[in-house]
Amino acid sequence: AALGARKMEDYGRFLALLASTLLVGFVSVILSLVWVFHYREGLSWDGGLGEFNWHPVLVITGFVFIQGIAIIVYRLPWTWKCSKLLMKFIHAGLNTIAMILAIVSMVAVFEYHNAKNIPNMYSLHSWIGLTALIFYSLQLFLGFAVFLLPFAPVYLRAVLMPIHVYSGLTIFATVIATALMGITEKLIFSLRNPAYSASPPEATLVNCLGLLLVVFGSLILWMASRPHWKRPLEESTKVLRPIGGTSEGTEVESTMTNSNADKSDLRVNAEAARKQNLKFDEAGQRSTM
Amino acid sequence: AALGARKMEDYGRFLALLASTLLVGFVSVILSLVWVFHYREGLSWDGGLGEFNWHPVLVITGFVFIQGIAIIVYRLPWTWKCSKLLMKFIHAGLNTIAMILAIVSMVAVFEYHNAKNIPNMYSLHSWIGLTALIFYSLQLFLGFAVFLLPFAPVYLRAVLMPIHVYSGLTIFATVIATALMGITEKLIFSLRNPAYSASPPEATLVNCLGLLLVVFGSLILWMASRPHWKRPLEESTKVLRPIGGTSEGTEVESTMTNSNADKSDLRVNAEAARKQNLKFDEAGQRSTM
Repeated sequence: AALGARKMEDYGRFLALLASTLLVGFVSVILSLVWVFHYREGLSWDGGLGEFNWHPVLVITGFVFIQGIAIIVYRLPWTWKCSKLLMKFIHAGLNTIAMILAIVSMVAVFEYHNAKNIPNMYSLHSWIGLTALIFYSLQLFLGFAVFLLPFAPVYLRAVLMPIHVYSGLTIFATVIATALMGITEKLIFSLRNPAYSASPPEATLVNCLGLLLVVFGSLILWMASRPHWKRPLEESTKVLRPIGGTSEGTEVESTMTNSNADKSDLRVNAEAARKQNLKFDEAGQRSTM
Repeated sequence: AALGARKMEDYGRFLALLASTLLVGFVSVILSLVWVFHYREGLSWDGGLGEFNWHPVLVITGFVFIQGIAIIVYRLPWTWKCSKLLMKFIHAGLNTIAMILAIVSMVAVFEYHNAKNIPNMYSLHSWIGLTALIFYSLQLFLGFAVFLLPFAPVYLRAVLMPIHVYSGLTIFATVIATALMGITEKLIFSLRNPAYSASPPEATLVNCLGLLLVVFGSLILWMASRPHWKRPLEESTKVLRPIGGTSEGTEVESTMTNSNADKSDLRVNAEAARKQNLKFDEAGQRSTM
């Protein structure tokens, strides 16, 4: 009963944190729209500043907010009764939407630069931003091939999952860092009379937007890295955990249903499972970040 | 024997990664010096640009490189025979050096700004940078009080350790993001004829420095978050792990030697230890990031 009460308390804490995260992300998107519509030239697609403005709006909406939600979608307790396959589709789907919005946001800048004869790809912001987008696309493609398509063997999934988790979180953090550089550039370039250094209201508003992005990223990373908030493992994979082990199991779930041909060699006896687990441990565990 | 060979292979991989990380960090420090001495006004302490230049050099040396080493110092296998207390002193000592260098680096900017009548604290870079320094100091102070001083009870250490790990890594990532913003600001402000957008050699060099900082941060985060590269638990704490559990134990080591008074209540029997562990699990584990 005491354990049950503690679980409810922990559930409440998760919900409070989730609500805060959604609020911070939502306010960030709103602030980007206020910035663009109240202080800047609004949105358009004509090679002018209105086209450039799609860049911050789509990056914050897609590459930050939607990517953040995609990261924690497995953590939502009410999805634990849904099939893992469905959740993988939602995870991949949200990341695909985020990628498309990120690509459109970059097209907007390139078109704006070309229309105004401003060089492309000279800034650190552009170097790191494009690198992050390329890694993000690779991550999505590899994740789809290994974890969604039913061809990858169980041991390959187990070896690649900690890398997938690590690179996902690292790319997410890099995207937020890139957004902060972009905000810095844009405020320096566009604020004249009064300049950025005179702290006009627009500067204060957009600085607050930058702070909110850091808070949003920190909350997502906290939720993603708490082992006790992870989706419980499916029954079929529990055999791979050492006897008496904690819920720190290795991610070896398959989208193939009952692929005993794949797993039978791992199931000889408990000792074999323990040894196998040692191997997975060496390759890293699901809960690596 | 096969397990031993795998362990050696894993050890080799760790060393290769460590060497790469040190190289990337070292080259970053060198590039910051090349930037300041070859392209800028060198170093001085006279309210001029030479004083400002201490800011990037000390941030990259202290707040990025030394902080990064402080984070992974427990991972170095040849330190595992040293006492945990000694390693804690090294960890705290390196972080203290990093904090002092970060503070001096900020004093340099404030003095430069004041001498030139440039406003302080108007940019997103300054907002996030000062916030990161404040959190870093709090983290050091709290870490010292809880994990180094012998007063905190074992359960408090167990509850706070995952928070300590999470906030340490998040602050580290935020510091790197802030450095990238600072690089962006400085290149825009100081490059005129040719401007940043014309990609003069200085711009390319400093963009590469920014990329190296991202690589350095990613390598540190990878090494810090591999559970199998963690320092093994001391024998005295192993009783707290569930029977047959993996090495994913909870960090409850104490700087007090043989403080049985503190721990006896946890040692009633194996079942009590298991339950206790459940509680620690809920508060999060050492291997949370």
